[in-house]
Amino acid sequence: MSYRYHHPFPTRWNDNDQYGHMNNAVFYEAMDTAVNVWMGRHGLDPQGGTFAFCVTSGCTFHASASFPDELSVGVGVERLGTTSITWSLGILREDGTDQVATGTFVHVFVDAVTRRPVPVPERIRAAVRAELMEDGQR
Amino acid sequence: MSYRYHHPFPTRWNDNDQYGHMNNAVFYEAMDTAVNVWMGRHGLDPQGGTFAFCVTSGCTFHASASFPDELSVGVGVERLGTTSITWSLGILREDGTDQVATGTFVHVFVDAVTRRPVPVPERIRAAVRAELMEDGQR
Amino acid sequence: MSYRYHHPFPTRWNDNDQYGHMNNAVFYEAMDTAVNVWMGRHGLDPQGGTFAFCVTSGCTFHASASFPDELSVGVGVERLGTTSITWSLGILREDGTDQVATGTFVHVFVDAVTRRPVPVPERIRAAVRAELMEDGQR
Amino acid sequence: MSYRYHHPFPTRWNDNDQYGHMNNAVFYEAMDTAVNVWMGRHGLDPQGGTFAFCVTSGCTFHASASFPDELSVGVGVERLGTTSITWSLGILREDGTDQVATGTFVHVFVDAVTRRPVPVPERIRAAVRAELMEDGQR
Repeated sequence: MSYRYHHPFPTRWNDNDQYGHMNNAVFYEAMDTAVNVWMGRHGLDPQGGTFAFCVTSGCTFHASASFPDELSVGVGVERLGTTSITWSLGILREDGTDQVATGTFVHVFVDAVTRRPVPVPERIRAAVRAELMEDGQR
Repeated sequence: MSYRYHHPFPTRWNDNDQYGHMNNAVFYEAMDTAVNVWMGRHGLDPQGGTFAFCVTSGCTFHASASFPDELSVGVGVERLGTTSITWSLGILREDGTDQVATGTFVHVFVDAVTRRPVPVPERIRAAVRAELMEDGQR
Repeated sequence: MSYRYHHPFPTRWNDNDQYGHMNNAVFYEAMDTAVNVWMGRHGLDPQGGTFAFCVTSGCTFHASASFPDELSVGVGVERLGTTSITWSLGILREDGTDQVATGTFVHVFVDAVTRRPVPVPERIRAAVRAELMEDGQR
Repeated sequence: MSYRYHHPFPTRWNDNDQYGHMNNAVFYEAMDTAVNVWMGRHGLDPQGGTFAFCVTSGCTFHASASFPDELSVGVGVERLGTTSITWSLGILREDGTDQVATGTFVHVFVDAVTRRPVPVPERIRAAVRAELMEDGQR
């Protein structure tokens, strides 16, 4: 998969576990960060009335990464639902060619108070269509 | 699923993210910790000649948890392969009844130097069969 | 120093950094967690009207600790101020005898909305005096 | 203090704790990362024969920071000892003007096997003098 948005993810000293590799949980931090930065830039305010809760995530690790690698996260959308987005994500080497890991996040949008599902905010929906989805995707 | 081993997982102040919930990446820390403590008690030395690398993981979140919850991780085995173990994991409330999340980890065992796959260590294999698998599972 | 409250702190797989030791930042997670659990049990609601902000912290490391060590945090109070508490903390081995690290946290209590300092909540003040301070301390 | 080296430190979604601020322990991750990247670029190999162990650290927080802030760490040296370096560090806003926090790390250099103190490696010593210390400092 090619990604239309890439988010830089420099590693931290303590990302490496005792095997000397970036720990697997840190890949989820990377993916969550990339998606949340992107959503924030398109109008989702984490202090606002709509939260994006992760309901499922997964990752397959193809190669190892280590501090002080400068990685990036490729952000795509697999499915744009009524109240949810399924993100398709890649952890890439700095030059963007080598795929270290491939992951998925499903975010459900909920009302910050009632915590009940609400429609994907219109600005996010429009931006996903315009900036992340490929022609022919829906 | 019922689990034959439960590992306590008390939450930390900084496990909560700004939504006031335990962050999704922390669930992976919990599952990895539970499996590694169990393997350590059954003879896997992380400084030794065999490493257990995570090649795939995934988690589905059914409910939220928050600091200062005292959680536990239920550890089961879905598949005992030649060079890999597929763990079936649950994040549970302290009393063990309520399932907060359900996850999977696949560990491949590798030689610490060559990083090539090696058979699941015999002591781990025997302990998985004796202590984690159900009758009829294989 | 002897501590009148001890909080258990089991280590996690990813607490170890690539030197094979619990990373120094994790000691701060431990101290913050112990203090916040203690304050929570004595009526400080993190969703409530008063926040406890850390304004200074420090730690001296006497020995190393590693996953899967079961550590504990000794909690004492060095100074009970008008709007702040200076905590005196120790990271101890499970049996409580060996001091792995010694640390300090200064929390200033602030109004959750204005973020301006407010007096230490009366319940916390009374509990600090009754349960954490030694005779002759003030 | 002005710093002669600045290391970028973009925040992550899960750096914010439930107060909606970057958690205090993350400031230590930032400082440790900046120093270790700098040392790595000047020849300290974390897989090599000399480790840099943190023996003391401390931080004073002047203002809050929050995801998705892009911070940077200013790196200076307060004291270059025989077997240790005392780093003087600042957590700064992206534009470098505003000091969010001020910290200190003392690293002692040890033999990776015996874990006994050894002299600061000559390349690190020379680079500290050339690139981080001010005229008149020693």
